[in-house]
Amino acid sequence: MRSVMAEMVYSIQDEICQRLSEIEQVDYREDEWVREEGGGGRSRVFSDGTVFEKAGVNVSVVQGTLSPQAAKSMGGGHELGDADLDFFATGLSLVLHPKNPMAPTVHANYRYFERGDGTKPGSWWFGGGADLTPSYLFEEDAIHFHQVHKEVCDRHPVADHSKFKQWCDDYFFIPHRGERRGLGGIFFDNINQAEQKECFDFVKDCAASFLDSYLPILEKRIGMDYTPEQKTWQQIRRGRYVEFNLVYDRGTTFGLTTNGRIESILMSLPLTSRWEYCHDPEPDSPESELMHVLKNPRDWV
Amino acid sequence: MRSVMAEMVYSIQDEICQRLSEIEQVDYREDEWVREEGGGGRSRVFSDGTVFEKAGVNVSVVQGTLSPQAAKSMGGGHELGDADLDFFATGLSLVLHPKNPMAPTVHANYRYFERGDGTKPGSWWFGGGADLTPSYLFEEDAIHFHQVHKEVCDRHPVADHSKFKQWCDDYFFIPHRGERRGLGGIFFDNINQAEQKECFDFVKDCAASFLDSYLPILEKRIGMDYTPEQKTWQQIRRGRYVEFNLVYDRGTTFGLTTNGRIESILMSLPLTSRWEYCHDPEPDSPESELMHVLKNPRDWV
Repeated sequence: MRSVMAEMVYSIQDEICQRLSEIEQVDYREDEWVREEGGGGRSRVFSDGTVFEKAGVNVSVVQGTLSPQAAKSMGGGHELGDADLDFFATGLSLVLHPKNPMAPTVHANYRYFERGDGTKPGSWWFGGGADLTPSYLFEEDAIHFHQVHKEVCDRHPVADHSKFKQWCDDYFFIPHRGERRGLGGIFFDNINQAEQKECFDFVKDCAASFLDSYLPILEKRIGMDYTPEQKTWQQIRRGRYVEFNLVYDRGTTFGLTTNGRIESILMSLPLTSRWEYCHDPEPDSPESELMHVLKNPRDWV
Repeated sequence: MRSVMAEMVYSIQDEICQRLSEIEQVDYREDEWVREEGGGGRSRVFSDGTVFEKAGVNVSVVQGTLSPQAAKSMGGGHELGDADLDFFATGLSLVLHPKNPMAPTVHANYRYFERGDGTKPGSWWFGGGADLTPSYLFEEDAIHFHQVHKEVCDRHPVADHSKFKQWCDDYFFIPHRGERRGLGGIFFDNINQAEQKECFDFVKDCAASFLDSYLPILEKRIGMDYTPEQKTWQQIRRGRYVEFNLVYDRGTTFGLTTNGRIESILMSLPLTSRWEYCHDPEPDSPESELMHVLKNPRDWV
């Protein structure tokens, strides 16, 4: 499974970057990197292009030894306790921040984890998900994004869309703001309740469906007109994205404390962001409509 | 001491805001706020003015009950263990982010803490400090800032400048970047090794010297010419400021997890910031000169 999953994520990275390259005027910068403790990865980042302010698609295939504390904070492997701290992890992680404030940011991640040699019960698992973070709410976009992910889940008995949708709303919560980072999507972890091949097929299907879930939205929004005030609002929303990622995101905090490749971990941060003191959107404005749904998540499908 | 310290910080807030109002074209916005669990504060923030991108000067006077975990993470009171979890805290906290990239950001904080009724050994202490965060290194500015703080320390037997300077370099370290947030200054905590009045006099002297340590630097730099590239570099440095504050700063993380007033806590964040993928300053440039000193702190006095 180690090599099957690694092959899959490298190939999805190629496919996604290929399509993004067709949309974007600039080409991506590629960095292959090696991790001192074992393994490495391949980061591809589009910077300051026509469509994207910043867009990164990372693959990593790493191995090493967990601290017992790091092992405790993981999504799976709890059956193992402090045993089998050697780990293997591979995954793809992407974040796309479009320039146009009408076009939403999107994040997706597909990962496989093993502890020890991956043979004991609970010693391997999959995780992943995708979520949409707009600055302005277009209901049809939210419905489309959630619909595609529901259809993927419905094709796989190991997946439970309503559970994964709820998990996503819970995971991307920013407690100090009382709001979610975005409109959600799906989030899942510790997936090992079926044969390994079945679990893999689900995650592969998620990854293969990513472009379908996002590109139609992007294409509808990138040509829209916007005002400087709408750009400023996007920048304030970017600030909240930074708050979530630096304070709460498990992947980010895990990477920062385990000597990961900093530039790949923080590639998720937007190119620019803004913090205005006591900024409150006008009542009944499109901005406050977004805030309402970030505070009160909806079922979109 | 509770009321003596609170009076001092309110009066220093007035003095500092008065001077900043003379320099800045916009007036500050003032918010008096009340904390549900007890106490409150007074925040004053200058936004998007001529001189400052954002500048906030906060006073808080709060009380409540600590969780044993919060008590453990504090700077003092370790003698008390899990006893006397009722606390009282008052302090002034300021962050000034000038627009001009040649003018450094500055942060200062002066605080007093009590647990229980403040009579047991180790149940009261002072903390504080001030540190300078430039985007470009002007050695004379660093020397001036450190010199003023050394003189304050030298006037008070309870203070130890070289220890507090080192503490500052250690505290503002960003491990995942291998660099410090800025050029340091002084940082101290758990100050209770002399009579309470002596400790207070030291902290009061620090607070009263703040404007002397910073204003001459600001006045020299605010009129300087700069290029768009230098402004971009400042924005990247702002990003590192955000990284430190959201990931490592004890005051920020304490506030985020203890239901503090979010807008006052995050007032420290810059108005705008920037994350460029794999940005590396040119060798021998002024930007890399700054990076060198952030990675290798110097003794300035």
